[in-house]
Amino acid sequence: MAKLIECVPNFSLSKEKDEAGYNALVEVANSVPGVTLFDAQTDGNHNRSVFTLVGGPAGIEEVAFQLTKKAAELIDMNKHVGEHSRMGATDVIPFIPTMDVTVAECVEISKRVAQRIWEELQIPSFLYEDSATRPERKNLATCRKGQFEGMPEKLLQPEWAPDFGERKIHPTAGITAIGARPPLVAFNVNLATADVQIAKNIAKVIRASSGGFAACKAMGFMLEDRGIAQVSMNMVNTELTSLPMVYEMIRALADRYGTYIVGSELVGLCPAKALLDCAEFYLKLENFDYKNQVMEYHLIDMAME
Amino acid sequence: MAKLIECVPNFSLSKEKDEAGYNALVEVANSVPGVTLFDAQTDGNHNRSVFTLVGGPAGIEEVAFQLTKKAAELIDMNKHVGEHSRMGATDVIPFIPTMDVTVAECVEISKRVAQRIWEELQIPSFLYEDSATRPERKNLATCRKGQFEGMPEKLLQPEWAPDFGERKIHPTAGITAIGARPPLVAFNVNLATADVQIAKNIAKVIRASSGGFAACKAMGFMLEDRGIAQVSMNMVNTELTSLPMVYEMIRALADRYGTYIVGSELVGLCPAKALLDCAEFYLKLENFDYKNQVMEYHLIDMAME
Repeated sequence: MAKLIECVPNFSLSKEKDEAGYNALVEVANSVPGVTLFDAQTDGNHNRSVFTLVGGPAGIEEVAFQLTKKAAELIDMNKHVGEHSRMGATDVIPFIPTMDVTVAECVEISKRVAQRIWEELQIPSFLYEDSATRPERKNLATCRKGQFEGMPEKLLQPEWAPDFGERKIHPTAGITAIGARPPLVAFNVNLATADVQIAKNIAKVIRASSGGFAACKAMGFMLEDRGIAQVSMNMVNTELTSLPMVYEMIRALADRYGTYIVGSELVGLCPAKALLDCAEFYLKLENFDYKNQVMEYHLIDMAME
Repeated sequence: MAKLIECVPNFSLSKEKDEAGYNALVEVANSVPGVTLFDAQTDGNHNRSVFTLVGGPAGIEEVAFQLTKKAAELIDMNKHVGEHSRMGATDVIPFIPTMDVTVAECVEISKRVAQRIWEELQIPSFLYEDSATRPERKNLATCRKGQFEGMPEKLLQPEWAPDFGERKIHPTAGITAIGARPPLVAFNVNLATADVQIAKNIAKVIRASSGGFAACKAMGFMLEDRGIAQVSMNMVNTELTSLPMVYEMIRALADRYGTYIVGSELVGLCPAKALLDCAEFYLKLENFDYKNQVMEYHLIDMAME
């Protein structure tokens, strides 16, 4: 199968406030053969742009570097103002395995990119998520705490030396978080109750942080417009914790609280495999070889050739 | 989205008995830009080869014609011997919508190909399956009855004029069946019983021919090696009759006969959509927009560009 990786770099720049700079980044994103700019979102209030790129390992590694280089030329973080937390011109670069690639391969890529942007651009970096070198760096928010303005001081703290580079930021481009993570599936389950406490209780049982499923983050919310409670989840690794597993657990817990599931929703993109898991589970499929038996995987292979 | 059609022509020739001819057909199959020869199966006993091609509408139409032309040059049906029923050098050409194409578009293609092979090659044809011009021609076996040797006489019967061409076969290439059909999903459900009659009873309730689901063909079998009964199905249109619908009906019927489902299996290829239906049904997904929300559809689009 064709190897595909998704890369979602975040830049501290918006089309609204710097159209020429934004266009220059788009041009770089489109310049590497074998890489497609899937989506580009930009927000003036955040003064931030998020690109979604997909391509083979070599191309995605190259485009991540070239974009970081261009962003460093374009952006002076000393002058950056925006609502979103940020610490660098290229603020964060996640690599996400998309097809026939492991998270481990993406970790290797993240380290090579981090090394290259230090050697060639003198921009230091933190490795985060699955690339993190210590537990407290897994979380992006922890790495970014202090933001651009607080980084010079933070980097001098014993435990906050960058993973690549010296203990000082790039004077205008700051510092970048780079890491690999599995694709994230945003999955919400709606309950036949207006009692938000039930959703909160269920969320607490199923989420990793309080002893639930290892790859599930969950919160309970009220959907005010519908007058019902919702268990809102980020499934951070559906290979580890599958959708049917959390769904069945929520079903059992809803019953335990005297209510039931009325519906669910996927927010944004989802890898087919996370949904094929449902076919396998609920139809009790035996010996299901999804890469060979699902037509679309062959079509992707064919098209890639 | 990229439009893709699958074409699965069957030729009355085998690699075992005519390697040069077989290779010439493979060469033609690989000669049309935008068309990929996905799979080629050949059987000496049947003296028959089955190609699976995938491509855009224009390419798939062209390759179907070019293959028929080459097969007519290579094969003399008067000399053909094989176990499989056959009536033409190119025996049958089904067109199957694979992505962003309707069966109706495939019906149009089947008619244009039928017209062209008559006009340019003087090979007559029956339109079958969803392209059929009358109910009794939907079934390939009915069209093919009498085989190559019986066709001259059959074509003179009032109701068996070819859909394209005159009432006589091509002297060496015979006559071809051409038509469009939805992708077929072979789906079997295994029961926790050694009583094959239960599987037969369930099959009778769920299949179209005895009043069940419109797009379901089903039979009851014994799986001798496992000592259990199986409901074996051909789902001829999973847009019309979805997998979760037949599965739930079988579950209810198994219960009615005092047994239950132990597992199921998909045989061969299956379009992702037939399995995504299971996620939608069992997770009670609201507003699920599979073409936009499932990553792989974007990857196919991207790769096609």
